[in-house]
Amino acid sequence: MVVLERGTWTSYSACGIPYWVAGDVEDAHTLVARTAAEHRANGIDIRLGAEAVEIDLHARTVTSSERATAVTQVLHFDQLVVATGATPIRPDLPGASARGIHGLQTLDDGAALIETLVSQRDLRRAVVVGAGYIGLEVAEALNRRGLSTCLVDLAPEPMSTLDPKMGAMVRSAMEGMGIEVRTSTRVEGFEVGDDDWVRGVVTPDGTLPADLVVLGIGVRPETRLAKEAGLPVGATGGLVVDRRQAVPGHPGVWAAGDCVETFHRVRQESVHIPLGTHANKQGRVLGTNVAGGYSTFPGVVGTAITKVCDLEIARTGVGQHEAQDAGFAVAVGMVDSTTTSGYMPSASAMTVKVVAERGSGRLLGAQIVGAGPGSAKRIDACALAVWNEMGADELAMADMAYAPPFSPVWDPVQIAARRASEEATGR
Amino acid sequence: MVVLERGTWTSYSACGIPYWVAGDVEDAHTLVARTAAEHRANGIDIRLGAEAVEIDLHARTVTSSERATAVTQVLHFDQLVVATGATPIRPDLPGASARGIHGLQTLDDGAALIETLVSQRDLRRAVVVGAGYIGLEVAEALNRRGLSTCLVDLAPEPMSTLDPKMGAMVRSAMEGMGIEVRTSTRVEGFEVGDDDWVRGVVTPDGTLPADLVVLGIGVRPETRLAKEAGLPVGATGGLVVDRRQAVPGHPGVWAAGDCVETFHRVRQESVHIPLGTHANKQGRVLGTNVAGGYSTFPGVVGTAITKVCDLEIARTGVGQHEAQDAGFAVAVGMVDSTTTSGYMPSASAMTVKVVAERGSGRLLGAQIVGAGPGSAKRIDACALAVWNEMGADELAMADMAYAPPFSPVWDPVQIAARRASEEATGR
Repeated sequence: MVVLERGTWTSYSACGIPYWVAGDVEDAHTLVARTAAEHRANGIDIRLGAEAVEIDLHARTVTSSERATAVTQVLHFDQLVVATGATPIRPDLPGASARGIHGLQTLDDGAALIETLVSQRDLRRAVVVGAGYIGLEVAEALNRRGLSTCLVDLAPEPMSTLDPKMGAMVRSAMEGMGIEVRTSTRVEGFEVGDDDWVRGVVTPDGTLPADLVVLGIGVRPETRLAKEAGLPVGATGGLVVDRRQAVPGHPGVWAAGDCVETFHRVRQESVHIPLGTHANKQGRVLGTNVAGGYSTFPGVVGTAITKVCDLEIARTGVGQHEAQDAGFAVAVGMVDSTTTSGYMPSASAMTVKVVAERGSGRLLGAQIVGAGPGSAKRIDACALAVWNEMGADELAMADMAYAPPFSPVWDPVQIAARRASEEATGR
Repeated sequence: MVVLERGTWTSYSACGIPYWVAGDVEDAHTLVARTAAEHRANGIDIRLGAEAVEIDLHARTVTSSERATAVTQVLHFDQLVVATGATPIRPDLPGASARGIHGLQTLDDGAALIETLVSQRDLRRAVVVGAGYIGLEVAEALNRRGLSTCLVDLAPEPMSTLDPKMGAMVRSAMEGMGIEVRTSTRVEGFEVGDDDWVRGVVTPDGTLPADLVVLGIGVRPETRLAKEAGLPVGATGGLVVDRRQAVPGHPGVWAAGDCVETFHRVRQESVHIPLGTHANKQGRVLGTNVAGGYSTFPGVVGTAITKVCDLEIARTGVGQHEAQDAGFAVAVGMVDSTTTSGYMPSASAMTVKVVAERGSGRLLGAQIVGAGPGSAKRIDACALAVWNEMGADELAMADMAYAPPFSPVWDPVQIAARRASEEATGR
């Protein structure tokens, strides 16, 4: 088994990078689950700094190019695994290649950002472009490192994967910790100094001064190589795979992770959701199948979670507008409640929104924003309820755990579900 | 609507009492969700200190006796609701009526215990009899109040609703906080001083000195009145009700809460599980039906949760031995993991055990013991998986939330489920 990796690291937690930047994690090596040496000890011929530059499906070969020397080598395969991941979107805007503008996808990106933070002592103001998961986490990290931080996004509220009212809560929380949030704001370019260092972020409302810019405007599946080889790419831009992670029509070719599209069980269509947990599960499925076993990836329901300071944020299924876009008529139930029984000293505020199908009352999705521990991981109960196509009324009556340090006597998820059910069914 | 309540409080959180004793909750009134005055403002004629002493199903009357005056009154009903709750088990042992021996079910019980703790300044050593939820919570409360505390139980490990290995973790944690744990120990009686105050708890291994004893050895359904009236009682000792909380064969008679038995969806038999969250849901179902609506209580899967200091403990479905007793052949998956990604400073240890049916791989139950926040409420995901009769392999691949502050990339619940599935199916 030969593995080509164009970078310098293997098997690391990209999701941990913002916490490394924040200082929660001291050493990048902590983020590495398995080093190249460990892989080699397992009998895997892993080649770092070696990039796959061509796939020939007829000849069943991959051409590898050693980055340092540009020496190429043609490798024959019986089974081919494409795990090329995703590429951060870099805006094609004036000044976008200036120094001081960072992406944050790989460990090397993280190292470069930390190097900038440590070596440039006069950094005072940071602008983070993109208010999704990574953008929020990085804005918090920079804010905690003492930089005056501004978060910019095109959408009306941060976290556009949440419905706007929930996103507004995220905005308040971020503003509460001293982060400036500029939404509905288009970035038009970057002001760059004579030293080729970024000076500001240009918007229609004027230029936001910046000594440091971090881009967190999402990723797209990295499929150039696969496309050139003739492998099928779906409407999402991700590679098409079946439930065993096999590429249909190409026996012996497999793909998994951020470069593939995945079946969304509620929307009943393919989506591209680049998350480490999906990639990890798909990798296991793929490996089982390549090794002659049988395993399937059952798809996703759009679960995601993050944390900004003490604010916990999670979602699953489809949001209200996403459901409408998918053709559902929807009803909504919301509740402002507490994480524990209200009389416990540990009680903190949490808001739960549940989306149900009008008429049937079937649960379609849920969102949680909470001010303290114990809020957002409740999304797993919602995710499994959505997964199993439960009615919102059944979730409301299901046997969820109650004790005063953990929940009010009716879990807030169940109250929101009940309200959504009543709204959906008129009962 | 007339409500007869023999006690002095209405609609309070009995589950909160240990936290009141511990000092987390300052005032008993905080535990009251709705006072008698609030009920009256809602048009309910609530009579405190009035005990129902007889039900006549032919005449359709209830005889009420005013506790203070013993004046009786006969009330006619069209609809009768029996919500007589449960009674703590008081052992019929020598000395059991001595002063200084407390139960802990009602707010008045809590007030009496706190009065003892405050007024008796020379209390040094407490013995808690019964290492279930209440026993554990009370032992912690007394320990935190500075009493040298010993917990005694007949079973080999605390929390006999957990499998023994998980119970052993609870023991270690309690011992770690300085609580003595004496299991496999039968209480044979109480030593009582000349002042009629308890002096010790008699066991076959000798007498445990005690200035204070709290009994937490469980409750039984309080059904004397209903039985005398001829209402049906099941093998569990609880009143028999249908899914609408109606008593079968007795039109217009309803029951809910700790006095009834409930359908267990995994064991597929009736059980008596006295928990506030079930009582609350059943009350809502009952009320909807009595008022002419339609609502059903879907049964339980045996979910429960508690906390002792930082140790979080939860269970759902059936345990390994409970499953075997119910006729299942079982397989088990266990994992020692962490609440968050291992590299996060907030990571704390948690152990998850999953029980699956041998052959089919169907999920039957799960147990969680965790050293820190974010452990035990994960049981809700397991509870919903059990509720929906998912296969352990499907739970292992379901879309549960991952981000480093919340979970390893595979949630420990999913790793345990995968192991249980592999064990169950031989794959």
